[in-house]
Amino acid sequence: MRAMDGTKMGENNTSDLPDTAEAPRFLRACAKLPVDRTPIWLMRQAGRYMREYQEVRRRYSLLDIIHSPELSCQVTLQPVDAFAVDAAIIFADILPPLESIGLRVAFQAGEGPVIENPVRTEEDVRALGGADPGGAADSYASTLEAIKLAKREIGSLPLIGFGGAPFTLACYSVQGSGSKDFALAKRLMMGRPELWHELMGKLTSLVIRYLRAQAEAGADALQLFDTWAGLLSPSDYRTFAFPYARRVVEALADAGKPLIYFSVGTGCVLEEVVTCGANVIGVDWRVDLAEACRRLGDVAVQGNLDPVALLGDWPATRKRAAEVLEAAGGRPGHIFNLGHGVLQDTPPDNVRRLVEFVHEWVPEQP
Amino acid sequence: MRAMDGTKMGENNTSDLPDTAEAPRFLRACAKLPVDRTPIWLMRQAGRYMREYQEVRRRYSLLDIIHSPELSCQVTLQPVDAFAVDAAIIFADILPPLESIGLRVAFQAGEGPVIENPVRTEEDVRALGGADPGGAADSYASTLEAIKLAKREIGSLPLIGFGGAPFTLACYSVQGSGSKDFALAKRLMMGRPELWHELMGKLTSLVIRYLRAQAEAGADALQLFDTWAGLLSPSDYRTFAFPYARRVVEALADAGKPLIYFSVGTGCVLEEVVTCGANVIGVDWRVDLAEACRRLGDVAVQGNLDPVALLGDWPATRKRAAEVLEAAGGRPGHIFNLGHGVLQDTPPDNVRRLVEFVHEWVPEQP
Repeated sequence: MRAMDGTKMGENNTSDLPDTAEAPRFLRACAKLPVDRTPIWLMRQAGRYMREYQEVRRRYSLLDIIHSPELSCQVTLQPVDAFAVDAAIIFADILPPLESIGLRVAFQAGEGPVIENPVRTEEDVRALGGADPGGAADSYASTLEAIKLAKREIGSLPLIGFGGAPFTLACYSVQGSGSKDFALAKRLMMGRPELWHELMGKLTSLVIRYLRAQAEAGADALQLFDTWAGLLSPSDYRTFAFPYARRVVEALADAGKPLIYFSVGTGCVLEEVVTCGANVIGVDWRVDLAEACRRLGDVAVQGNLDPVALLGDWPATRKRAAEVLEAAGGRPGHIFNLGHGVLQDTPPDNVRRLVEFVHEWVPEQP
Repeated sequence: MRAMDGTKMGENNTSDLPDTAEAPRFLRACAKLPVDRTPIWLMRQAGRYMREYQEVRRRYSLLDIIHSPELSCQVTLQPVDAFAVDAAIIFADILPPLESIGLRVAFQAGEGPVIENPVRTEEDVRALGGADPGGAADSYASTLEAIKLAKREIGSLPLIGFGGAPFTLACYSVQGSGSKDFALAKRLMMGRPELWHELMGKLTSLVIRYLRAQAEAGADALQLFDTWAGLLSPSDYRTFAFPYARRVVEALADAGKPLIYFSVGTGCVLEEVVTCGANVIGVDWRVDLAEACRRLGDVAVQGNLDPVALLGDWPATRKRAAEVLEAAGGRPGHIFNLGHGVLQDTPPDNVRRLVEFVHEWVPEQP
């Protein structure tokens, strides 16, 4: 049973979602419809802070899990079983889909992700997505299969698919690994703008294909992660990154699924961020949520508790969660989330209490 | 010969600086007085990108250099000899002064700084600055001596002293090392606010003592580095960090030297940042400089070229440098700098050209 089957949701257009109490509150909030309670899910809600996940990781690597639909599905469901979250998010990573255009992705223990053949030259850019990358077209097939499996298990609970935004994918593709400043990537961007735009065009097409496939596989909503957007000056973000995120959103307007654009460190340019046309704008914890809501205008907003606030004793966490809820003021279209992913040292019991607290919270009547 | 000897500069008050053409343009810009050319210096202008520095480092560790007045002075002068920068900045690090209140600071090759006895408990906070920390009162004596030596060498060229802002020092003191998120430090801040404020009070006193001593040793200006301010939500910055930076600025108002407050990642709260009362506000490259100038109002502004822009070919660097100069529009009180420190892979020749370009630039007549 999938409550949202057959519904369509136009770009920034709420009229396609039936205003029925049966629609899950997460999807109603994406459409800025009134909700009974503020919906909540957490970025990286499936992960190392959960004992259940650690048990799986003792036997399988990260890529083992991502490349197995059954294991991905199992891990996706862990927080759904443990907490009353309002959405699941498919367990995957933003980098493996890069294999479908010819990059080789590895995860080294303790080292983070590595691209074994990073993009540095004109020839490297030209080669992307060209000749058959040797079976790597399967690089996200397992994620699509996992979406189908998970959707079968969770019924009407919304399932979120996701992908990296073109700029964030370009950072890894050129740098070849994680980095504090992604200086190699930004250097190519600054020094060879025409080559950068060619690379971004290819990555944009990839992201559109990947997210569309997730929607077709059954994802009920899609989130675009622009984790490294905050490394750019406003001018560079405007020229070299944001237009491609917007192109992804525009291309997926006909997919019939709400789209969330989450960019980190872009608090200075929220007025532009919102023009991407996404149904929901995710904000990190470095902006005041009430001010962000004002600046973003008529759009649903997701966020923005500091992930560190979940590490400590519950009373301190509760106070900060209340501040986030009060800042949003019960506005239709607030989706409670962290301002970034759940940290590894987070006590699962804090997550359980947070979900309960958000669901119990009722805005004060004016 | 010290052109600035005997001059006094009140807080946000330019009247004490004689409006003579002899005053160095960096100090005139700090006071928002007209200048013949835009002054320029670069954060980390002495460092690994220079062959001369690498040669010293082949024989001495970072702490060896910092603890030797002669070596510190030598390294301080390297960029002054190589480029026509408008100020020198004493070669030092923000952490060693923590030894004077009982912390043990080490630098491990490739690992960055480590505090061997990090502050985690009430007892740890209480112990800070208590019993004689065993000769560690000398931890910044060598920097003061280096200031005297360097000042003797550079004559009227202004010398900048500096220290870490209390929040940034607290991050390292609690975490015990560098970190992506300084989660342990922020956890203590959130969970034990009264203990945090006690710690911040002690660090604030230390920074005031340290900067005052640098001013007395001959530093012509003082910069307060709040490198990790951007890890905080606006509300937490307002409550747990900014008041202590302001207290430092206020306490040093009578030192007679211009004070620069540089906080990274605080673009969303510039209107508050400027209320610290510093003569100069440093801004990173993630804010539009023209907009920052408007929002900051009547204060000198330092910044803000993306350090990555110095890595590539000169024509691309030149274009971006021109954009920074045009954004400031030749306003009195613009000090050209990067938006963060010089990166290790920077070609020294780009630095030389940048300094020349900034000095040649003249604003278009309206």
